Order: sequence, then structure tokens, then C-alpha cells
Amino acid sequence: MSKLKEECGIFGIYDWGENSQVAYDTYLALYALQHRGQDSAGIVVNDKGVMRIHKDLGLVPDVFTQQNLQKLGQGQIAIGHARYATTGYLSRANAQPLLINHIKGTLAVAHNGNLTNAAELKEELELEGAIFHTTNDSEVISYMITKERLKSSAIETAVENVLYTLKGAYSLVIMSPQKLIAARDPWGFRPLCIGESDNKIVFASESCALDTIGAKFIRDVRPGEIVVVEKDSVKSIETHCKSKGNMCVFEYIYFARPDSVIEGASVSKSRKRAGMYLAMEHPVEADIVMGVPDSGLDAALGYSQYSNIPYDVGYIKNRYIGRTFIQDNQKERENSVRIKLNVIKEVVKGKRIILVDDSIVRGTTIGRIVNLLRESGAKEVHVRISAPPFINPCYFGTDIDSRENLIACNMSIEEIKNSIGADSLGYLSIENVKRIAEGAGCDFCVGCFSGEYPIEVPKDMRKNKFEMPINI
Amino acid sequence: MSKLKEECGIFGIYDWGENSQVAYDTYLALYALQHRGQDSAGIVVNDKGVMRIHKDLGLVPDVFTQQNLQKLGQGQIAIGHARYATTGYLSRANAQPLLINHIKGTLAVAHNGNLTNAAELKEELELEGAIFHTTNDSEVISYMITKERLKSSAIETAVENVLYTLKGAYSLVIMSPQKLIAARDPWGFRPLCIGESDNKIVFASESCALDTIGAKFIRDVRPGEIVVVEKDSVKSIETHCKSKGNMCVFEYIYFARPDSVIEGASVSKSRKRAGMYLAMEHPVEADIVMGVPDSGLDAALGYSQYSNIPYDVGYIKNRYIGRTFIQDNQKERENSVRIKLNVIKEVVKGKRIILVDDSIVRGTTIGRIVNLLRESGAKEVHVRISAPPFINPCYFGTDIDSRENLIACNMSIEEIKNSIGADSLGYLSIENVKRIAEGAGCDFCVGCFSGEYPIEVPKDMRKNKFEMPINI
Amino acid sequence: MSKLKEECGIFGIYDWGENSQVAYDTYLALYALQHRGQDSAGIVVNDKGVMRIHKDLGLVPDVFTQQNLQKLGQGQIAIGHARYATTGYLSRANAQPLLINHIKGTLAVAHNGNLTNAAELKEELELEGAIFHTTNDSEVISYMITKERLKSSAIETAVENVLYTLKGAYSLVIMSPQKLIAARDPWGFRPLCIGESDNKIVFASESCALDTIGAKFIRDVRPGEIVVVEKDSVKSIETHCKSKGNMCVFEYIYFARPDSVIEGASVSKSRKRAGMYLAMEHPVEADIVMGVPDSGLDAALGYSQYSNIPYDVGYIKNRYIGRTFIQDNQKERENSVRIKLNVIKEVVKGKRIILVDDSIVRGTTIGRIVNLLRESGAKEVHVRISAPPFINPCYFGTDIDSRENLIACNMSIEEIKNSIGADSLGYLSIENVKRIAEGAGCDFCVGCFSGEYPIEVPKDMRKNKFEMPINI
Amino acid sequence: MSKLKEECGIFGIYDWGENSQVAYDTYLALYALQHRGQDSAGIVVNDKGVMRIHKDLGLVPDVFTQQNLQKLGQGQIAIGHARYATTGYLSRANAQPLLINHIKGTLAVAHNGNLTNAAELKEELELEGAIFHTTNDSEVISYMITKERLKSSAIETAVENVLYTLKGAYSLVIMSPQKLIAARDPWGFRPLCIGESDNKIVFASESCALDTIGAKFIRDVRPGEIVVVEKDSVKSIETHCKSKGNMCVFEYIYFARPDSVIEGASVSKSRKRAGMYLAMEHPVEADIVMGVPDSGLDAALGYSQYSNIPYDVGYIKNRYIGRTFIQDNQKERENSVRIKLNVIKEVVKGKRIILVDDSIVRGTTIGRIVNLLRESGAKEVHVRISAPPFINPCYFGTDIDSRENLIACNMSIEEIKNSIGADSLGYLSIENVKRIAEGAGCDFCVGCFSGEYPIEVPKDMRKNKFEMPINI
Repeated sequence: MSKLKEECGIFGIYDWGENSQVAYDTYLALYALQHRGQDSAGIVVNDKGVMRIHKDLGLVPDVFTQQNLQKLGQGQIAIGHARYATTGYLSRANAQPLLINHIKGTLAVAHNGNLTNAAELKEELELEGAIFHTTNDSEVISYMITKERLKSSAIETAVENVLYTLKGAYSLVIMSPQKLIAARDPWGFRPLCIGESDNKIVFASESCALDTIGAKFIRDVRPGEIVVVEKDSVKSIETHCKSKGNMCVFEYIYFARPDSVIEGASVSKSRKRAGMYLAMEHPVEADIVMGVPDSGLDAALGYSQYSNIPYDVGYIKNRYIGRTFIQDNQKERENSVRIKLNVIKEVVKGKRIILVDDSIVRGTTIGRIVNLLRESGAKEVHVRISAPPFINPCYFGTDIDSRENLIACNMSIEEIKNSIGADSLGYLSIENVKRIAEGAGCDFCVGCFSGEYPIEVPKDMRKNKFEMPINI
Repeated sequence: MSKLKEECGIFGIYDWGENSQVAYDTYLALYALQHRGQDSAGIVVNDKGVMRIHKDLGLVPDVFTQQNLQKLGQGQIAIGHARYATTGYLSRANAQPLLINHIKGTLAVAHNGNLTNAAELKEELELEGAIFHTTNDSEVISYMITKERLKSSAIETAVENVLYTLKGAYSLVIMSPQKLIAARDPWGFRPLCIGESDNKIVFASESCALDTIGAKFIRDVRPGEIVVVEKDSVKSIETHCKSKGNMCVFEYIYFARPDSVIEGASVSKSRKRAGMYLAMEHPVEADIVMGVPDSGLDAALGYSQYSNIPYDVGYIKNRYIGRTFIQDNQKERENSVRIKLNVIKEVVKGKRIILVDDSIVRGTTIGRIVNLLRESGAKEVHVRISAPPFINPCYFGTDIDSRENLIACNMSIEEIKNSIGADSLGYLSIENVKRIAEGAGCDFCVGCFSGEYPIEVPKDMRKNKFEMPINI
Repeated sequence: MSKLKEECGIFGIYDWGENSQVAYDTYLALYALQHRGQDSAGIVVNDKGVMRIHKDLGLVPDVFTQQNLQKLGQGQIAIGHARYATTGYLSRANAQPLLINHIKGTLAVAHNGNLTNAAELKEELELEGAIFHTTNDSEVISYMITKERLKSSAIETAVENVLYTLKGAYSLVIMSPQKLIAARDPWGFRPLCIGESDNKIVFASESCALDTIGAKFIRDVRPGEIVVVEKDSVKSIETHCKSKGNMCVFEYIYFARPDSVIEGASVSKSRKRAGMYLAMEHPVEADIVMGVPDSGLDAALGYSQYSNIPYDVGYIKNRYIGRTFIQDNQKERENSVRIKLNVIKEVVKGKRIILVDDSIVRGTTIGRIVNLLRESGAKEVHVRISAPPFINPCYFGTDIDSRENLIACNMSIEEIKNSIGADSLGYLSIENVKRIAEGAGCDFCVGCFSGEYPIEVPKDMRKNKFEMPINI
Repeated sequence: MSKLKEECGIFGIYDWGENSQVAYDTYLALYALQHRGQDSAGIVVNDKGVMRIHKDLGLVPDVFTQQNLQKLGQGQIAIGHARYATTGYLSRANAQPLLINHIKGTLAVAHNGNLTNAAELKEELELEGAIFHTTNDSEVISYMITKERLKSSAIETAVENVLYTLKGAYSLVIMSPQKLIAARDPWGFRPLCIGESDNKIVFASESCALDTIGAKFIRDVRPGEIVVVEKDSVKSIETHCKSKGNMCVFEYIYFARPDSVIEGASVSKSRKRAGMYLAMEHPVEADIVMGVPDSGLDAALGYSQYSNIPYDVGYIKNRYIGRTFIQDNQKERENSVRIKLNVIKEVVKGKRIILVDDSIVRGTTIGRIVNLLRESGAKEVHVRISAPPFINPCYFGTDIDSRENLIACNMSIEEIKNSIGADSLGYLSIENVKRIAEGAGCDFCVGCFSGEYPIEVPKDMRKNKFEMPINI
């Protein structure tokens, strides 16, 4: 079921306790952040300045085994990364964190987001002789920091200076032989928060990772802030803090886990509020409200609570469908969705149904679900989407399908309704999507809906010159 | 999270169409029946009398690859099996279906259930020189049929005659070179239904498997009935049909998939009704009703609907936790449940919560969940169980923990309540559990709750003499 | 490079010492016997009557890991098997040893050879209701013993009685809860020897396995002898000992390892003597003698020593070519032999070469080697084969290609010479092949050369009714 | 059996034919070069400027599958690498070839050898901001070329200019979007040769790789020469050609495959000549000459031919011992050598034996072999080594054990003789080792024996700052 994709989840930990288990803590945290990136995973452990790395393609539980976690060994600092790879670049070489040697020692970098001036920075570096092993922005960032470090007295000063140059979305965790550094771009596109417990300071893309390792949420890293952790000290550099930021609103709608709190707003609550606003904007008479699992469920609950139409569970999702599912070669069965999702006929038969989902990308999946419901005897199917239609690209770390594939770029809402076979179709308005994260201490980026972005966006992207097959 | 375990899911298909894909159809069906057995899976394909088999330990998607499905090849008939293995006997040799050669040809057998007289039958056979490769009842059944076949004119007559001897629970699919046969024990313990589509007749443990392959549900195989499918003909042998049967009530409470219909009653609806009766029997003032995922959700919805206390989703289950999750060696973290299940604090904070689950086995997991809710600020936690307490063994195909581990065998309800840290605890009554499957055309076995079984139960079980390590 | 194939290697050990490691000893022994069967391997360990098994398709080092050797655990007795599978029956179900339960307990059987009356015995058993899981003779033997055991006071008596019925070639190791039994057929087709060390008695197909585990060779098991090992006692049953036996002469020519001693004759010496007789029968003027690696080397040394023509090594065999070598799909390269074998031009250029091999099956490989030598500048190539031509089937455990593929069934020696491009071709005579194993205390079976067999041979083989794909 | 280790084997191909299969040709060539590096393997394919790579830890047949060879796809140019990794740096990141992007496009580099000024070059680069992902010299070389390329009109000019700076041993194949370039260091330490066939030009570390793919040997790349292949043109740059070079003599003694010809001298013949000189220098009365398999066999043949003492094969090497062999944990069996090598008692019993090997590193293995021979009844064992004793480090690409482990650094020849239990011991003299490669058009580096090196050697090696666990 094709969906938008987030680029990454990142994590960092400094534990000066005696029985620190930074590799295992990072492993657990990456498990909790797995929804942000399922293509590769990696951990770098720093044991008194010596860094050891393991990373590979695959899910966290596939990449890490008892054996290689043990090989990563003990340490005081660690950073981790779970990555989603855009098609064609699913390459082992591109897995993160990046671990490099430079004149002042070793540096490990994990990055979530997308630089808008990566191509220019890369070219400048190449003109001075730089070579690139990957197509990741984090390699550009590593070079920038390394070069700046030659002129700076400390790694954090180098990071501070480099932030004048980096444009776009980036949440970073950086590890030097002695320090753990976290930073967010001044525009605040991607989340990053701070937690603590006993002798640990940790950074994570989402607060759910803190819960998993039993750490207490402290606060979000501020847009533009650099937080530096050393043995027994934490300091904040606020040179680049200038605004309250523009969090990607899709973090609330779809990317983040419902149990996370981002910029002070609960993701779960935001989704329910999206459902409520949707009920306000697009009411309809019906017998039950159902969500498309898993991400449409909260919005469906919100719709039900506001509208007083009972919430129900109208289908079951096969828990065992994994990535290895064998497609039928002979006849392309239209009903592959049927294998993943089976309607409970007794629930839907004869009913007028409100079906809530968080987005429509190509329209194929939702169309098939509507069709399954009708086959099972649903009288009416009213589709409600807890976000506005996508009609613009994202330059800040979300992988949106190309315009020709985005149904909302090519059809009116009425046409989409017909195409997916719904009795009615309603999207949440841009106005209300900005209101869902009640209590959030930030503004929001809604560029993919409105076409208006918080910062200037690039005109094109330089093509990468090498291609990497799947197992490199 | 320790749970009761079902023994098996079975499937059979006869397809006389030109482009039959019996191996792939069986693969899809086993996917849908995966919840009934996750330890091994197998398929036997019959191509004009030549049988090919593939089976192994593991989940359906692990056992079957594009390559070995292709090797199974084309055919007209196939049977499949997904198996749960009791501890210590997780052995490749025990994987089903069983495929054997005998004097009249080849025979493949897949079995769900438990014979109560397997030990005696085995001994009789052994006294005549039989040798056993497995510890499965299906090997006993195969011998019985084979011996009977020597005296019978047809395979179905042999099956018919053998049914006089077999005691206990069995749903069977049997494949001979030319026929596909399904049979249920006369007491009707385990489900088995018939479906059709185009040129196919199929049998499956649950109707959800029919939906997956696009077949239409026809009816359940009757208790004691033998259904014989040959090219262009289907016939029923009703010699052993004597009662409407006693379906295991736990099929409705926990084992079966909510989208299945068993003996005319919807599983999903039965669970909601269990929730409703529970609300009736054990009302309490509260702010929200939550289910323990996944199997407690339907009962929670039922409780909410009856009580008018709002249903909510108070935690998120990590979708990526698989069987390979690495445990922490150094300190046994009490909070491994925390990695799998994270509370959404915003939902539970300050709330009086009704927490619905379908059973308590040892009490550990539910106790940890209650604790997590309290840590997240829940004011009260009232636990409701949509079944009566287990206090007796099952002889008919369910793997229940030993008495010393069953909390309800060792504590009063008040003690259990205290042990799991709940503010109150209520179980569904035996009286009402018999009412949940509204519309079912059968009686129910509630022996694990009441100690009263539809047939005589054996006094002991002969120990098996060989042990098989995991990979045999 | 297609070759004749031996059916199996077997091993058994009884160790009543305190720190016995019967699983590991068996593992080492199977390593040494790996050349006798590369398709599957298995070990059964007996720990005070409880038997544990692990077996699978693959080479010994692939089948056994640290982990599953540990799971096999401690024990006092163990048997092992390495198997070669005839095409189409490469099936996990057919892997040995066979481990079964019967009325008197558990029985494990490992078998090398081929019964000539297996089909009749199988039919008799089936007429009494027996079912067969495999297509192995060892399952027939297990049934026979089990049935006899019902009437016998001890397992060894059952074995003794069964030997009246079994016809053909069999070397057996059998393990009951308390005993280890070894037996050879009265005609002595296949080797089996006895060794000891400290508190151990061991049986092995070849003496090289004894060397590997540091055991001392005692003697061969006699044709028809049954040796029974119990705690602190070894006894011999000689009821069926009636002749000095007819060892398969191909054990000396090709199957056995050169470092083994069979029936008192060194395999290495026998091969050199074959080379000497060959030089005697087919002398030719030449510059160097070379062997086809690996099995032709000893005969080449013998040819060189007798003829006084220098021995040389004219090509190198790539040590890294394994079974996973990827064939070129696009154009069928005639020179796949070139990848495995590269000629050392400096050695062969301008030379008259005598090329010694142990057999010609289809003639393809030897033809390509002759061609490679000529391409590298060899002036003459004289092929010498250290055995007579195959022209008859083997019924006693060797897998010989079908007649239409055997070059010697379809061509005269002159035609073969031309077909493989040699300047001359000479085979060892039947008369002399019987003389190679100097000092052996037995006669020889040379049926595959002469068509005359020590016992009556069957007319046809009943086809098996089920087919098993590769991974069962 | 611990041995010296070569750093690498390299290969490059330019095929402008229509049905070029550069990936498969490179795969075959790496198979032939596998003996030069068994820790990792990689191939980069260039299809009209787009480069695709696959590399991983493992042997060539493990790293490359049908599937990933297909993903590498069609192309006109390819380079490949097989690598041996020094302990502690067995890391996926260090696998070669290196594939990088720079301002002028993409560059792939494969390297055999060792720079003596890598540390200084690295530091210079780092002072300008360079970052390093690996600890390979090839990354240093890539940077140097990239930087030079900014100032040069063509890639070959950049390579030409960089050669003024690189010190030490290097044989290189370099691939740019349009060119394939081969180069050797001006001192000629490591081999590299040119071959052709049809529309192909190929480069390989050894001529055996040419034979494997059916290419014709043309000549060696000259010390200091740069050969540039473009579509339809081959040119040579000889700016750095100044001497006939100093080939590492160990290439002849041990590293190279016997069927290769290096600098005009046959490796096989060189080894036989080493045996002859050895017989000349250290004659002894004996009954047979045996070689330690596999690399001592040729020298043993040479010894036998000169001395007229018969050559014989006194043990068999188990062909199936792979890297996965399970060690016995309980008691460290002294006789692990016994599992790999079994003496043929009939050959050695009562004999005076000359045992020829190519080197003694720690002395453990040869000691065990001598012991095995004595146990099997050898009367005398005279050890002869076809090279002088190692007493100095190698700076040019050979991994020699540390001085404290080298037996010849710590004992006199008499002491070594006693330590290994031989009756006599003789090494080849430095004087004669220089004569073995008769006809070679070069001088030799014998630094590891004499301590005198063709160029200045570095005093220390800068330690690497990051450590990489095995699977990165």
C-alpha cells in the first residue's frame, strides 16, 4: 500500500554510568524509530575515542544480531540511524551513520532531512578535490564540518560555523571522540528531542524512543540550537535560534508514532483532532465510522467522537504479511489488497460507512478498499481524508511520488471520488490542518499542500553519477 | 506475551480448471490461517497422481519462496498445513502435511486437533510392527486409514470405517492420487468449512482463508461428516453425523480471526457480544474503555457500546517486533513489554480505565500493562476478561500451560486482582460465554473452564521416546 | 566433472568414558567420509536411551554448526551418515540416519549399499499395512527389524534373523537405546571396519575416519558378521559368515580415500599397482606421465614408477570452485573445464604425454582435457584408464549412468580414442584389476565390467510413487 | 595452517564487442585470482559512463550470485578485486574496488600493494579538509588522482603526475567513465600483465586469469608504465619507466599460481628450480621426497628430479575442510592438523623422508606434520625449505607475522630443527633464491630475507583511528 515516506530516524546517547550499554540502548531506540526508515539501520559506538560501526540494509532486527551487538562492544557514546531509501539508491554504501577519519580524529554523523543547497555545496567541495562515496547529504555535512574544524578550536565551533551555510531541513546527531552533539536547522522542519535518565543524556527523532529505553522527556531541541554533551556537562549554543520553527505537519498526520509528543503536541491527539475537524467540515449521515489501518484509526476515532456515529472495526489486517510475500506471476490478481485486508462482512453489510484515511497518493489502494466494502454489502462508502490534497513536491525530507502519479495533481475532487468509487469524498482544509497540533509551540510547513514553503526551494537536483546495486 | 496456542490450520483444494494454481492458492490460504500455527508450514501438490511436497519450520513466508513454490509445480489437488508445536517437539520431522506411500499408492494427510486415544491406537499398531517417524496424531491416522484401505474398495470407505475408532478432536483433509477428502470428528470440536469458486472446491479451517483466495463460503463440514471430492463430483458420507457438535468456545474468544464465520456465527460479533455480556456482568464507572491488542479490541468495542463509556486507543504496539528481538543479557529488564507496547500518556493520564483482554494465563503480561498505565497517570484500572478463568486442561487441540503456571488455578479472583495491580477484576461467566456465538448451529465445549467435557478424557499421555532438536 | 557415485559413508561410536563427545567425534568422522556422500548428512546421539537427531541436505560443514552440535548434546552412543542422492530424490526426507519409534523403544539406522529385494520386501510389508515416508532401503530394514523384534528377546537376535531375508549389499550401523550394532551383508560388497581408543569402540566405512578421531584400526567387520557393543562388552554373531566376500573393486579404484586400508589392502598402493599393471599392459614412448586430479594421481605415479617415464604436474586445479559456481547463461562456454583446470604450458609444451585417469563415463571431460593439452602444445596425448570399461549396471550401491550415456556401451575402444581426441587409449584388463588390491583377504565384485555378479540380480525396479522437491 | 598472505588480486577489462559480458569475465578472472585474496571481492561495471558496483566480505563464489551479477548488468569496461585483509580490519567498508564521485565524474580504483608514504600523503590531504571512509591506500590514491585531475586535461595525465608522488608498491587498475587505465610502480614490486582476445583488452595480476577467460597473454605492464585503453585505442605512457624492476621473489615461491608466467618466468618451473637448488645445497640420503600440499609439491618434484630420489604422495588432504570447520571447545586437540591431513601409512612406514615446504612461519604446522610422519612409522624426516628464512618485515604488500612470532627471528637453524622434530633442516640460500625465476626480465626484491630493500622504507605506521567490526 503505497504511502509517503519519511527519510530517517536518528538517535544519540551519552552515558557516563559504569554499566553503560549504549549499543543496546541505541538498538532499542532504533526499534522504536523503525517506522521512520525501514531500508537500512546502523549504530556507531564510541569507546574512549575508538569508534566501531555496524550498518546494513534491512530492518533493525535483521541488521542487528546478538553477535554483532556484542562486537560493537562497550562504550560511553553512541549514535544510530534508521533510513528510508528513495528508489534506485537502496545501497549499502548509503546506509548511515557515516563514520569518517579526518585530521583531528574520527567523526560520526546521522542526519534526518534534506539540504536544499547540497548540490552547490558538493560542487564547491569537489572543486577543491573532494571525493564522494555516497549520495547522502550527511557526507556533504561531514566535509563541511571537517573543513571548518581545521580553522576552529573545537568541534562544536565548527558545527556552529557550518550552520551559516547549510540550507534546508536537518536534524543531526554528531559524535566526535569526546562529544555528542545534536543540532536542528533554524527553520525547524524535522523533530529532535532531548531526554535523560540516570547518567544518560539522549537525543531522538521522537519521544517514543525515550519511553522505550526508560528515559524522561526533557524538551525539544530548538530550531537552530546546537546541544553539546561532554562528560558531566551539557551546553547549548543558540547562535542560530531565530524563530519558533515550521514543523512538517505530516509528522502529526502520518509519519510520527501516535505515542510521540512533538513540539508539545501529542501526535495521537493531533490525529483525533484532524478527525474532528474533518467531521466538522465534511459531515454525512452514516451508520459507522472506520479507519484505514493503521494510520487512519486515530482520525476515525476523532471523527466518530465528534459526529456521534459509532466507531467500528470493519476489517482485519493480516499481521503476517511481510516484505517477502510472493506475488502471483501468472495473472496479476487485482485483489492483492484482499490478502492483506479482509472485510468483516457482518460489520459492513447493509451499512452506510464513513472511511477515514490520512492521505491519497495514487488512489489505487483506497479504491480497492472501497470496492471490497461494496462487495461485502456496504450500502454507502464516504471517504474522508485527514489532510488536504498533495499537489506539490517536498524539499525537506519527505519522498512524495512524482506529479504524474499524484492523483490530486491530475483530477478534481469530484473525479477522484468517482475514480475510487466513493459516494462522497472530503479532504481536511489547509486552514484546519494547521490547527490539529493543538498546543504546539511552533508554526507548520504545509508546502506540499499549499506550494508555499518557509524558505526558498531549489529549481532542480543534480543527477548522481553512479548507481549502486542493492547489496553493496 | 504468552497466550494459549491452537494446534493447527488446514486447507485443501481441488481445482479442475485449466489454469489451476493449487500451490499458490494453498500458499495464500495458509497465509490467512497463519494465526492458527506459526511454527511450521507445508504444502503437498498432486499432479495427476504424482505428489510433491515442501514443508519446513518457520512462518509461511519464510518456508515458501518463489523458487520452491515453482518446484511444487502445477497440479489439480493440494493440501496445506500451518502448525503450532508444543515446546520440545519443535521439529522439522513433525511438520505437516504427512506424505506417505502405502500399498495402494500415495496418501497425504493434514490434521487439526488431538486424538484422545492416540496412545492406545499407536500401541496396537506397534504390536503389529508399525514404526513411527513423528509424534503426530496424523501418523496414527495415516496408519489406520492405510490398514483399513487394504480391506476397503475405496479410500473414502477406509476413512469412513476408521472414524469408528478415532476418539477426540480432528478436522482432516486427506489427499489420495485421485481424491480430496475432508472430515470432522462427530463431536465437532474444531472448525472446517467448504467453499467454492469457478472450478474449485476448497476446505479450510476458517472462512477467512476462502475470502483470501476469492472463494465463496458454502457451509461448514458437519460434525462426523466426510466430504469426498473427485473430478466433477462432490459427495457427502454422513454415517458418523449424530449431533450438532460442541465447538471449542475459545475459537470465538481468541483463536479464530475476527473476519471468520464459524458454524454460522461471526467471530468478530461474538467477541463484541462477549464484551457486552462482560459490561452487563461487571459494570464499573470509568472514563474510557481500552482493549489489549490485538485480540482484546473487539471485546473492548462491545463493552464500550453496551456501557456507553467511550472507546479509546491508549497505547501503540510496535509493529516491527519479530521473533528475532534480542534480549538484554546483562540486566533482565522488567520492561520488555515496554518495547512492544507504549502507552499514549495523553490518552490515559488522569483517566479511570476499563482494560479488556480475552484471557489471563500467568498474569505477568496483564500485570505489566496495568503497571504501565499507572505509571502514565491512569487514575484507576479495571480489568475485564472476556472469558471465564481457565482451570482445566484441554484434550482437544489447545496447548494450555500446566496447572502450576495457570494463575486461576492458584489464586482467587481477589488475589489475582491484587497480583496484577488492578482496581477491580471481572471475568465473563460460563453461562454467558456459551451465548456469545449468537446464531451458531452448535453447542460448545467449555471444558477448560468447567472441567466438563463432551466426551471421556484420557488419564495420562505416554511419553515420546525420542527427542528432536530444532532443525531436524 | 561427472563421475561414478558411491551411495554412502556410515559411522558409529560407543564411548563409555566420562568425557565422551560422541557427537563431535561423529562429526569429525563424517568429515573424513565426506567423499562417500555429499548430498546430505546426519547424526543421532543417544544419551541414556533418549535419542536426538540432526540431519539435513548439504555437506557436513554446512549441515552442522556449533549450535546444532551443542543441541545434540552429550551421549554415550552415536551414529552418523553422509549420503549421496540419486537425481530426483535429493530430498530432506531421505537424509539418514533414520530414527524411528517402535513398540520396544527407539531405533536409529544408517545404511550403505543397496538391497536387491527391497521392492518385494516393501510390498510384503505394505500388504500388512506398512506406510513409507522415504524411498530408502533403510526404512525397509527398520521395518524388518521392528517386526522381528516383536518375536525376539533382543535387538541383536532380531537383526540376526532379518539377515536371512535381506539380499544385496548392506553395511549397517544400528543403534538401540542400549546397544550399538554393526553388520555387513554375507557377500561383503561394501566396506566396514572396527576401531578402538580408550573407552571407545567405533565402526566406520573406511579406516581414514578412525585416523581422524585418533582411533586404532582393529579389523574389518567380516562379511555376514554382526558386532554388538554394549556397556563394557563387545560380541560377535557369525551365523551369516560364510565366505571371504566380494568387495566392490571400485572402492580401490575410485571411491575410497587413498589413506584407507580395506580388507587389508592399502587403497593408495592399490591405485599405484593399477598404474603399474596399466604400464605393463599398455606401454608407450612418452616424455611425462600426468594424472587427472585428484583420483588419477596415484595411478599416474604407479605408471611412472614402472615405466621410468618422469611424473609431472601439468595443470593446476582451482581450489575455490565450489558447487555455487555461476554458469554463463548467454553462450554455453565449452571451456567450463578451463575454469576448473588450467594447463601449465611450460610443462606440457612439445611433450609426449601419458594421461592417466580412473574411469571414462561419458567421455566429455577427458575429451576436453586432451583438447586443453593439445592447445597448450602437447605433441602427443596417450590416455590410460586404471580400470576396465564399464558396460553393465551396478545393483549394489553405485550410481552408474544409464547405458545410453556410458560411452563404452556405445563405442569400440578405437572409437572412444577418436572421440576424445587421444593418440592412443588403453584400459586396464579385468584380469589385472582383480590383482590391484594386493594382500586383500577377499575376492572382488567386478560385475560392472564383466556382467557377472556374485549373487542374482533383480530384473527391474518398482518406481516410487511420490516425488520430493529439494528442500523437504 | 598459517601462511604468509598476499594483499590482493586485481583485474580490468575493456570489451568493445557487441555481446560483451564484462561482469562475468571479471567474475571468472577473480575466481582464478582467488588465491591472492580470500577476504572480500568486488566488481564495478561501467555501462556508457554509469557505474554499478557490488562488493562484500567473502570468497568470490560467496560474494557473487547469479542475481547480483545480473544486477551489475551489461557494460563495456569493468574492474575487479579480491582482497586479503590484515587482522582487525576485516571490514566491508575496506572491500575494493573503491568507487567514488568527483567533480569530473566517477572513478573506480583497484589496488595491489602497499604505499610506503601513505601516512604522509593522508595527512597532507586531511590538512586540506579530506575525509577518509576506509583505511585503504586506494582511497589515498583516489584523492591524489582527483586533486590532480582538477589541473589536468585528462585522467591519464592526472595519473601520470600522481606517480611522481606515490612511493612503494602498487599495481593499479583505474576506470573512468570512458577509460580503463593500468599502472605499475616504477620499482616493479607486484605483477600486472596485459592480455587480449577478440575485441577485449584485459589486465590481470597473473596470467592464469587470462587463460581462464580465454585471453592471450601479450606482455607484462612495465615497471612505471601507464597503459590507457579507450574505445579502439591503447596507448602507453612511459614517463616513469626507469628500471627493469624488482619483483617480489615470494610471488614465485608461494603467492602466484603455478600456471602463471610472471616477467617471463614460469611460476611452476621456478618452484621446481627452487627444489633443484635445494637438492644441490642440502643433499641427504633418503627413500622418498614428499611435498607439503599444496604449495610445496612443485619444489618437491624439483628436488626429486635433481636428486633422483623417488617422488611420492605420503598423505591425503581433506578436500572438504572449509572455513566453517567447528573447533572442539572442550579439549584443544593438538591434532587439528590430523583432520586436514592424513598420512598414508603404507607410503611412509620405515622410510627416510625428505619433506619439502616453501616456508616456515611459526613452525607449528610443519612440526605437527613431522610428528604425524613419525607416528606413522617414518624412520627419518629431513625438512627442506624452498626459500631462505624470513627475518625482516615486508613494506610492499605482504602480511608477515610479527617478529616475536617468526621462528627464524628467535632461533638458530639448529634450534628450529629440534623444535620441529626434524632429523635435518635446510633452507635455500638468498643467492640461489634469486636464480629460481630463470629467464625473468627483472631483478628481485628479497628484503624479507636480507633486510635490504630496493627503496627506502618507512620507520613507523600511523595507527588508524577507527575500528570496524566484521560486517560493516
